[in-house]
Amino acid sequence: MANIAFIGLGNMGSPMAINLVKAGHQVCVFDLADEAVSKVVAAGAVTKKTAAECVQNAQFIISMLPAGKHVDAVYLTEKTGLINYIEPNSLVIDSSTIDAATSCKVAQALAQKKIGFVDAPVSGGVGGAVAGTLSFMVGGSLAEFEQASPILEAMGKNIFHAGEHGAGQIAKACNNMLLSILMIGTSEALQLGMANGLDPKVLSNIMSKSSGSNWTLDVYNPCPDVMDNVPSSNNYQGGFMVDLMAKDLGLAMETALASHSSTPLGALARSLYAMHANTGNGSKDFSSIFNVFNLPSK
Amino acid sequence: MANIAFIGLGNMGSPMAINLVKAGHQVCVFDLADEAVSKVVAAGAVTKKTAAECVQNAQFIISMLPAGKHVDAVYLTEKTGLINYIEPNSLVIDSSTIDAATSCKVAQALAQKKIGFVDAPVSGGVGGAVAGTLSFMVGGSLAEFEQASPILEAMGKNIFHAGEHGAGQIAKACNNMLLSILMIGTSEALQLGMANGLDPKVLSNIMSKSSGSNWTLDVYNPCPDVMDNVPSSNNYQGGFMVDLMAKDLGLAMETALASHSSTPLGALARSLYAMHANTGNGSKDFSSIFNVFNLPSK
Amino acid sequence: MANIAFIGLGNMGSPMAINLVKAGHQVCVFDLADEAVSKVVAAGAVTKKTAAECVQNAQFIISMLPAGKHVDAVYLTEKTGLINYIEPNSLVIDSSTIDAATSCKVAQALAQKKIGFVDAPVSGGVGGAVAGTLSFMVGGSLAEFEQASPILEAMGKNIFHAGEHGAGQIAKACNNMLLSILMIGTSEALQLGMANGLDPKVLSNIMSKSSGSNWTLDVYNPCPDVMDNVPSSNNYQGGFMVDLMAKDLGLAMETALASHSSTPLGALARSLYAMHANTGNGSKDFSSIFNVFNLPSK
Amino acid sequence: MANIAFIGLGNMGSPMAINLVKAGHQVCVFDLADEAVSKVVAAGAVTKKTAAECVQNAQFIISMLPAGKHVDAVYLTEKTGLINYIEPNSLVIDSSTIDAATSCKVAQALAQKKIGFVDAPVSGGVGGAVAGTLSFMVGGSLAEFEQASPILEAMGKNIFHAGEHGAGQIAKACNNMLLSILMIGTSEALQLGMANGLDPKVLSNIMSKSSGSNWTLDVYNPCPDVMDNVPSSNNYQGGFMVDLMAKDLGLAMETALASHSSTPLGALARSLYAMHANTGNGSKDFSSIFNVFNLPSK
Repeated sequence: MANIAFIGLGNMGSPMAINLVKAGHQVCVFDLADEAVSKVVAAGAVTKKTAAECVQNAQFIISMLPAGKHVDAVYLTEKTGLINYIEPNSLVIDSSTIDAATSCKVAQALAQKKIGFVDAPVSGGVGGAVAGTLSFMVGGSLAEFEQASPILEAMGKNIFHAGEHGAGQIAKACNNMLLSILMIGTSEALQLGMANGLDPKVLSNIMSKSSGSNWTLDVYNPCPDVMDNVPSSNNYQGGFMVDLMAKDLGLAMETALASHSSTPLGALARSLYAMHANTGNGSKDFSSIFNVFNLPSK
Repeated sequence: MANIAFIGLGNMGSPMAINLVKAGHQVCVFDLADEAVSKVVAAGAVTKKTAAECVQNAQFIISMLPAGKHVDAVYLTEKTGLINYIEPNSLVIDSSTIDAATSCKVAQALAQKKIGFVDAPVSGGVGGAVAGTLSFMVGGSLAEFEQASPILEAMGKNIFHAGEHGAGQIAKACNNMLLSILMIGTSEALQLGMANGLDPKVLSNIMSKSSGSNWTLDVYNPCPDVMDNVPSSNNYQGGFMVDLMAKDLGLAMETALASHSSTPLGALARSLYAMHANTGNGSKDFSSIFNVFNLPSK
Repeated sequence: MANIAFIGLGNMGSPMAINLVKAGHQVCVFDLADEAVSKVVAAGAVTKKTAAECVQNAQFIISMLPAGKHVDAVYLTEKTGLINYIEPNSLVIDSSTIDAATSCKVAQALAQKKIGFVDAPVSGGVGGAVAGTLSFMVGGSLAEFEQASPILEAMGKNIFHAGEHGAGQIAKACNNMLLSILMIGTSEALQLGMANGLDPKVLSNIMSKSSGSNWTLDVYNPCPDVMDNVPSSNNYQGGFMVDLMAKDLGLAMETALASHSSTPLGALARSLYAMHANTGNGSKDFSSIFNVFNLPSK
Repeated sequence: MANIAFIGLGNMGSPMAINLVKAGHQVCVFDLADEAVSKVVAAGAVTKKTAAECVQNAQFIISMLPAGKHVDAVYLTEKTGLINYIEPNSLVIDSSTIDAATSCKVAQALAQKKIGFVDAPVSGGVGGAVAGTLSFMVGGSLAEFEQASPILEAMGKNIFHAGEHGAGQIAKACNNMLLSILMIGTSEALQLGMANGLDPKVLSNIMSKSSGSNWTLDVYNPCPDVMDNVPSSNNYQGGFMVDLMAKDLGLAMETALASHSSTPLGALARSLYAMHANTGNGSKDFSSIFNVFNLPSK
């Protein structure tokens, strides 16, 4: 069992840290929100007054932070950044979803102090974090990937080695850009069929068994009452928020700009999700984009 | 076993007719191309000098024609249309991929002579037609659907009842619009990952096991050499031609125009496939849209 | 001065007919709506019990109807269509905005009876119809164009010869597709500037004097209170309705489908206007698409 | 007359510096490319061994650099950045087209040393730079704007005050995003008309006098041989390169991402220009996007 420092106890970070505790690891947690800390400590973790103290004896440092600027600041701030406190040969696992450039910058800085790093963003949402069934897309050397894997297995079930530093972030950006396209395309197709008299359950069944098959149609249907236990059948509550999809699409677009890539459907998906968020739907599940294509009721 | 007239022996129609023969049906075929007729007759079908003679004793009349205007003309032309020769209580199965409005028009005209009708467009391509594994999306009454099903089962393995007359065409238009979006979205995502250093096999595997999973990524990967036995690994030969996808997207857009539906990704997909066809790629497999997103080689 | 029959007295047709009366022509009007007829008769026109009676002595027959199917029915219906009553050597001027295919079909049928035809759709809106400042985009032979011009000049100020039969409809479809793109593009640019702190009046002035200059920015600004006397400064009342723009974009898309043309921005504009109409904005001015890009108020 | 340091003598910078000389200013130029320096010195400028020496007695420092990172580095690099050499109360005029965030960062840093700053990107191309007819979009305080204006007037004819620091960059990003939309929309409309038999000169004339009027149609027509003296009539040589438009669209998209703005047409335009650049057209004029919509020749 390992000594692990866990920085960032939001909706995702808290259950992830608890799963590490359950797996028998020694976990020292830190967050600015006392309430979040208390909850994880109640589950068996310890805490310290500062993140710096948390990381000092840790073999693994896991961070789950909102954006690249936070990751940069937490690790690399001159004098107070964690880079000054983490011990050589330990491994930083950053599970934040951020831009690959920041991942690479942090990895390089840590490497100069002989500290390992992997970027390991997740998919699977809060449900997957609680259930310990997250997917991790990992960027780092093969050695770093193998070092990280046993720890990640306590929190997830699919651990992918995407490539070198930053590749985990790139893989997640690509996947979520594609996911947004699947969701909008499925919504358009279902609405087009319904507008022309088809039953959405019948059409979903047909397309799902044909070449229109995709994750959003098959297991996360955006049309209310086609499936049970999906956000669309629960007023688009729960699931993966529009604001988070908009954020991930922003990262995908930054990636596309940097590589001069042409992504017409991805770019349009980003604008449609931004429009949807800007009209008051930011906290709904991302399948609510279905409603953008409603016809007027007769 | 049934008496069947089969009109239209193109790349799809010929193997479909042969499968009916193999299943033990009496099949009378007609096409303006003598060579196609000879081939199917060699497999056990009979032929007559005119389509009108073919249909006269048939219980089922199956047609496989290029476009709505052909279907309209073959059945409804004043005096010479097949409507004047088909016997009451027989069933017309039109497997052409055409606009739903023409399907409904033909259905109504036939109904006045007590002739049944289903629209039953297929998916599965020439391969599926030969193997007898096509999917049929059927529009018609439940009674008509049940009447047609035993015949269709000799040619396909998934027989879907989409709804009333025209619903089969609508379902196919929706499915193929979605398919085009999946293909372009998957191409964009793979190219974006590759432009940022990821291996397309690795990225395909990750997304296929994550929420990016879809038919084009999982079984018809558009990136050369990720999968064996798909058109992308064979210079985009074989498979489903760009020109045919462009035609189907045209039908989907006509459907959207008629119902005032908003389909931004579908509309963009149509223009991208039109552009791709117009630059000399019309006879390649539709996964060749992948190349539109190539970065310049360095 | 000429004998003119005028069929179709909607918001556009009525003031157009009145301008013909004012110019000194003998005008016989027909519409199913008695009220509209009474109004134009009060201005000096005459009427008859049927359209057929109206056209019998007319040198010019002008029609202003909602869609292609109406034009087809009015002129070509077997036995009762106006083609049976119009005198040879007279000229039909169809100012309806319809598909070019119908225009060409009517032109050909009339030609067999030695009746001339031009398609002459208008731009300029109700305001232009009242003021007699419409633009006409005319399709027909040069002789037909020259025959029509003196009559059109009583209703408009720009009379363009677009080409052969149908070319007037094509020109209008192209122009209005471009107009919709200008309007959405201008809205996006202004909103992007405003979201980043710029004053829309300042930004409008800069772009209008730079390469962003276009008709919507320069004389029909979609941002409220940048200009006086435009719909955006009057709650988007008046002007050119979203529903009419959506109709015209439908015609443009049908034109693109028929010629296999790729029009990515035009296709996206159509879906955005359909979405805007479907969310309850159909009767607002088309510049109200500006609001689709609003950021949430802080 | 003023003492001016001019840093960056590319295709734009050189003629701008020469125009300052012609206006009677004392101009000290610096560039890493000796050849460019020699040319401007031959026109009457002086030079020094380092940029630092150039700026030391200057009242105005003008920079024309490729990207934000260069501007940041030139002014703010610790110890060697020009901020250490520029005198208080002088004014930095940065005419580079870069992101507004960098402009604001440099402005703030300079302000702490009592050095003024305006961002003043230009439009008008190499032709405008040579002719002294550039447009400047200026961000800064009113006092800074008024201080800069007399200098800018030696190089341009339209000097716009867009707003505070960064507003010049925002205005240019908005304008050029709109410009790209105008160009693509105009190309689509002309091609759609041509595909349906219209003469591009006739259609251009009609739309230019109607609501389709816009800068690209009216003075920079993308269809070959409609206008003389535009790039489209010269094999798309000269003018404004596709690569530069792609760069500017990248800046516009970064701006949109930062403000969560929805820009569907702008985003699609960026992907189309990236695609066009990636297929070997980067050094052609940006009106060459017209060819993307070509139909196959028959």
